[in-house]
Amino acid sequence: MIYQTDDTICAISTPHGTGGIAVIRISGPHAIEITDKLWHGVTLSEAQSHTAHLGEITDPLRPENPLDQCVATIFRAPRSYTGEDTVELSVHGSKWVQRETINLLITHGCRLAEPGEYTRRALINGRIDLTQAEGVADIIASSSRAAHRIAMKQMKGSISRRLTSLRQSLIDISALLELELDFSEEDVEFADRTKLISLAEDILSELKRLHSTFDSGNAIKEGIPVAIAGATNAGKSSLLNCILQDDRAIVSDIHGTTRDTIEETLEIGDYLFRFIDTAGLRDTTDKIEQIGIARTRQAINKAHILILVIDSTTAITQEILTPINGTSATATIILLNKTDLLAGERDVLKAISSVKTLLHATTAEKTIILPLSTRTGHGLDSLMTHLQKCMSHNMPAEEDTPVITNLRQAQALARAIESTGTLLSALRTTLPSDLVAQLLHETLTNISTIIGNIPSSEILNTIFSRFCIGK
Amino acid sequence: MIYQTDDTICAISTPHGTGGIAVIRISGPHAIEITDKLWHGVTLSEAQSHTAHLGEITDPLRPENPLDQCVATIFRAPRSYTGEDTVELSVHGSKWVQRETINLLITHGCRLAEPGEYTRRALINGRIDLTQAEGVADIIASSSRAAHRIAMKQMKGSISRRLTSLRQSLIDISALLELELDFSEEDVEFADRTKLISLAEDILSELKRLHSTFDSGNAIKEGIPVAIAGATNAGKSSLLNCILQDDRAIVSDIHGTTRDTIEETLEIGDYLFRFIDTAGLRDTTDKIEQIGIARTRQAINKAHILILVIDSTTAITQEILTPINGTSATATIILLNKTDLLAGERDVLKAISSVKTLLHATTAEKTIILPLSTRTGHGLDSLMTHLQKCMSHNMPAEEDTPVITNLRQAQALARAIESTGTLLSALRTTLPSDLVAQLLHETLTNISTIIGNIPSSEILNTIFSRFCIGK
Repeated sequence: MIYQTDDTICAISTPHGTGGIAVIRISGPHAIEITDKLWHGVTLSEAQSHTAHLGEITDPLRPENPLDQCVATIFRAPRSYTGEDTVELSVHGSKWVQRETINLLITHGCRLAEPGEYTRRALINGRIDLTQAEGVADIIASSSRAAHRIAMKQMKGSISRRLTSLRQSLIDISALLELELDFSEEDVEFADRTKLISLAEDILSELKRLHSTFDSGNAIKEGIPVAIAGATNAGKSSLLNCILQDDRAIVSDIHGTTRDTIEETLEIGDYLFRFIDTAGLRDTTDKIEQIGIARTRQAINKAHILILVIDSTTAITQEILTPINGTSATATIILLNKTDLLAGERDVLKAISSVKTLLHATTAEKTIILPLSTRTGHGLDSLMTHLQKCMSHNMPAEEDTPVITNLRQAQALARAIESTGTLLSALRTTLPSDLVAQLLHETLTNISTIIGNIPSSEILNTIFSRFCIGK
Repeated sequence: MIYQTDDTICAISTPHGTGGIAVIRISGPHAIEITDKLWHGVTLSEAQSHTAHLGEITDPLRPENPLDQCVATIFRAPRSYTGEDTVELSVHGSKWVQRETINLLITHGCRLAEPGEYTRRALINGRIDLTQAEGVADIIASSSRAAHRIAMKQMKGSISRRLTSLRQSLIDISALLELELDFSEEDVEFADRTKLISLAEDILSELKRLHSTFDSGNAIKEGIPVAIAGATNAGKSSLLNCILQDDRAIVSDIHGTTRDTIEETLEIGDYLFRFIDTAGLRDTTDKIEQIGIARTRQAINKAHILILVIDSTTAITQEILTPINGTSATATIILLNKTDLLAGERDVLKAISSVKTLLHATTAEKTIILPLSTRTGHGLDSLMTHLQKCMSHNMPAEEDTPVITNLRQAQALARAIESTGTLLSALRTTLPSDLVAQLLHETLTNISTIIGNIPSSEILNTIFSRFCIGK
């Protein structure tokens, strides 16, 4: 990959395909000049920033056949997304017109942009930092209100602000330590060790707090995992189909119909949920079913929410409730299914109370019991409402604090936590200033990597390759 | 379908899906006012036309969580596509952001636009006429330079200009006829019958000329039909695969492998070609193959270009050339296939000359003989070049004259031709002025329908339902 930054790039920024219009973005020192070569209308080089102009794109070699009638909007450096001179061409959304316009631009001096290159240039030109760039990617990928909210905060710099202030304190102390080293023969201490320890402690706890948001942040982004567990024929697959309002999973009366775990996502309220229909738990000699049951246990372990489906027409035993005891899910829902087959409301209440008596006090706390009929759909609304409630109770209060959602940030944070820990123990054992300075520098580097003040080119390539071309 | 025109509409104008950015278009009397309710940034109502502004879209009910950071471009009536006040919001290209922005706009007073409603409003507000609106749809659908060129001319009003001048002459004469009717008792003739006949003749020939462009115009738009015919195992399916550089059709040594006609389009040079691989022509008792052969004959009849594939390693007989004599194609290409199996260049020349001697003088004129090996690809370039040549020779000189490409226009023209013909015979038989006036009016109406000065609402609905939403 070549990443020149002094040339002019172009790309289709709107989704791939045919539409009413499509937007082609041209950015770089010659953006306006190149467009002018193809432009019939007012001279764009003389146009003010942030103005839109109707005109025609024409191949100078085919002056009698204009390529398109379109609108060119001018953004002059540094008041553009990339911080460079930018032209946005709003052309007719035919694939042919889009392709030909790009070809013309390339013929006249543009280079086709690499994925994410516009955002990369915004980063290089200091318009945004690395976590903000990642926020942009997350906004584009977001598929629920909660995921979007986190991404938006990140794009607007919530993580950066938090870390930048920590980093600044470290830089200040670092400067004092350097001073000590300069005067090392005089054995003075400019940097107060107690203050330094207290600061390192603050930083460590802040980093740990941020790191702890990854699990739920990532779940919100990718879909909150909800495992659907229970005995065979309790109606797990029917529940999945009922939730999705679709015939997704094969349903039959035969025990052990579902073997593979089936995953489907659904947006409910502000959240995206990832429902995992699992194989029914039972003793079986069927090899494939055994593998399926092993996977079910894995799914139960990883789930943030566990739904245990119980056939309310059968006797409810302690054994049926076993999956609940093993789970680390933050919330558990016991669904008493097939209530349409019960005689009436009294039988439903009886079933609920018999489950209640079997629950351990510790699990009862985070468990709710809901009646449901997957056949009639009765009780589905309560389930949906409760799923949303689980999230708003158990998720970090995102309103106030930044949440991290991607693995790169989590790993960079883990490294920063480690070096801050080392620094802290070093400070407590009264290490010489030069070694403390070195550890301090390492910690600084690790924190800087998170917000990308000194990211390596390798890290940049990894991040921007996830972008679509044209952003 | 309700088509209010005094409300404010909104839609996603860019292709469906996820991208760097997406454009949401809002048009109508309250476009700017409604956007302002959701806008954090400069007050758009105070912004000048054709200016772009960075800001945030925010749900007033969730002021702490902006929906997106985006650019709003203002186009004030009548200087916009629709002729109404228009806002174009350039939002992040996440499906969720796109959907939520539309939802917010609808909550605050917009209506979701019907397909093509923006262009419909442009028509109603007199920004464009009907053939121009159809030109816009054709531009968006165009998939070759030639198709795009025709659509562009249409959008810029080439058909309209031609018909409008004819229509104006008719209106002038119509006025004189009305005058005659007013003075009917005095038996004067204001409208010179000879002039009228000459004018009607001009109009008729012009309408007929325009109508005659439909066949090729439509072919350019949909893809120029090229039938691939020949005996079984001559290598027709291999040719299709060779042209497409793909394993599209099943190829085997078994006679009668292809039964269905297979169609694939490919852009070569300025044109889109629609290649139709057909069943091999032979006597067969296989019922399905018989149906396939009947379809082959149909395809040959409809083709603009016929490619007859001949196995050059077998004896070339008069019978093999039969399909050429039946065709109404404007050009025929005889492909001598399997030249890689011949001993050398001399054998190739021998095969060519033996075909030549068998050709009738009349067909020889529009026929070219090309050697080819579908196995090695040798000769494919000449075929491609020749296909383009066929088109530039046989297509109307689009540079000068408008070309019609859609069935509605063709049908409206046919009606206008019919009524002009009736008018002409009436004039020649010296019909009374009042009957001539009536026929004249009918002709006028039919011509007007083509350019859409008085289109019925039914015609409008048909046209605009073909558009994508957001245009």
